[in-house]
Amino acid sequence: MNVLIVYAHPEPRSLNGSLKNFSVKHLEEAGHHVHVSDLYAMNWKVPLDAHDSTAWQADRRFDASLASKQAFETGTQSQDIALEQEKLRWADAVILQFPLWWFSMPAILKGWVERVYAYGFAYGVGEHSDTHWGDRYGEGVMAGKRAMLLVTTGGWESHYSPRGINGQIEDMLFPIQHGILYYPGFDVVPPFVVYRTGRTDETRFSQIQEALGQRLDQLWTAAPIAFRPQNAGAYDIPALTLRSDLAPGDVGFGVHLANE
Amino acid sequence: MNVLIVYAHPEPRSLNGSLKNFSVKHLEEAGHHVHVSDLYAMNWKVPLDAHDSTAWQADRRFDASLASKQAFETGTQSQDIALEQEKLRWADAVILQFPLWWFSMPAILKGWVERVYAYGFAYGVGEHSDTHWGDRYGEGVMAGKRAMLLVTTGGWESHYSPRGINGQIEDMLFPIQHGILYYPGFDVVPPFVVYRTGRTDETRFSQIQEALGQRLDQLWTAAPIAFRPQNAGAYDIPALTLRSDLAPGDVGFGVHLANE
Repeated sequence: MNVLIVYAHPEPRSLNGSLKNFSVKHLEEAGHHVHVSDLYAMNWKVPLDAHDSTAWQADRRFDASLASKQAFETGTQSQDIALEQEKLRWADAVILQFPLWWFSMPAILKGWVERVYAYGFAYGVGEHSDTHWGDRYGEGVMAGKRAMLLVTTGGWESHYSPRGINGQIEDMLFPIQHGILYYPGFDVVPPFVVYRTGRTDETRFSQIQEALGQRLDQLWTAAPIAFRPQNAGAYDIPALTLRSDLAPGDVGFGVHLANE
Repeated sequence: MNVLIVYAHPEPRSLNGSLKNFSVKHLEEAGHHVHVSDLYAMNWKVPLDAHDSTAWQADRRFDASLASKQAFETGTQSQDIALEQEKLRWADAVILQFPLWWFSMPAILKGWVERVYAYGFAYGVGEHSDTHWGDRYGEGVMAGKRAMLLVTTGGWESHYSPRGINGQIEDMLFPIQHGILYYPGFDVVPPFVVYRTGRTDETRFSQIQEALGQRLDQLWTAAPIAFRPQNAGAYDIPALTLRSDLAPGDVGFGVHLANE
């Protein structure tokens, strides 16, 4: 299988760097092909702007979606964007690896999403009608591929627990797992989260590697998070609200899981 | 009063640009002083890295928190970071204005947070003991100041409603309102959200301006979102989980609101 690791950490000699190297080695030893997009090492251009198309005109009003659509359709996307899209097409599984900074992904990775997820590629795909609101949330270009988050944080696990002060980790990652990964069609397996990274001695690092290795081995077989597909009947279209007989009376991110 | 608008949109001739101009004019006509950090126009450096300190050494292992702490303490922060911190100190209220891209703030604004929110400034502040886990979540450098999000999105309001497919907007904004604004001490007033921006004719634009003007007039008087302060007894320290007798049995972001 082909695995793309999109990796966002500025220091190779970090816990993240070590875990990235471990993942590459572990996957390759299992016979997989691995490619790493090391965003800091690539000096990835972060801000989405008019220069993301080679056909941009200085005097023209910039509309992000429209410019993305035209560039994608006419082959005038910046080369760096087109290359990342090729890697995504190639991949059978994608791992986004990053330290949790201010309760989300680092800016450099967010900028990768914003620029690579073009109109016509990751959104604005498929039939748009009274019964089908675009190929998204369970359908789309990434359908059939798997994705997993590999996240590190200095905070304690209890701080991210269901009643922890930072908010529970499942909800914190929902906009990424559901909104960025499930949206264009990925099956998202549960995240691998490392807490309290400031206290990682050799024993603990071995334990983390062991656990991560097991999760990588299960990348193809683990049950994905049971997000509800948009166009299979669970949502009223075009309001896109969950049908009232499903999780009746409940609200919040949890209602979008079929097993809740 | 002094108001800082941190504004993240690449096109001045956009709905966001018009609303930013309206806010500046409206606030100034009411006698306030306004400063805009227009991140795209400033060509804001987005990625947090070793170059954020003028004292960085090429061969040294980069630790983001440690480097930030040392640069903040010794006055060796990059000038662009120090200037934004000065603006935050000057401000009585801060507005973060941005289009919702992939269910969070644009990368350029996330990079502003990551770089400007230095160790010793926005985190790593105050006593750290068995009864007080740092000045954060209701305490900190921004205590006494107000903050508000001004967010636009192409999606419909129902898509972001309590059972809407994107997830409810309150939860989507929680990592920003609670994790980025309340954390260093801001009182956060409810967000001003504009939905379905693709259909903004003149009538609708007038309505949006009218509503935004009222919200700006109430910036100093509106009741803040009732997030629970960390060190006032609601949380067990150091687990930082909500006391079991508060919102008993409940889980999720909502438990961190005192009025739930």
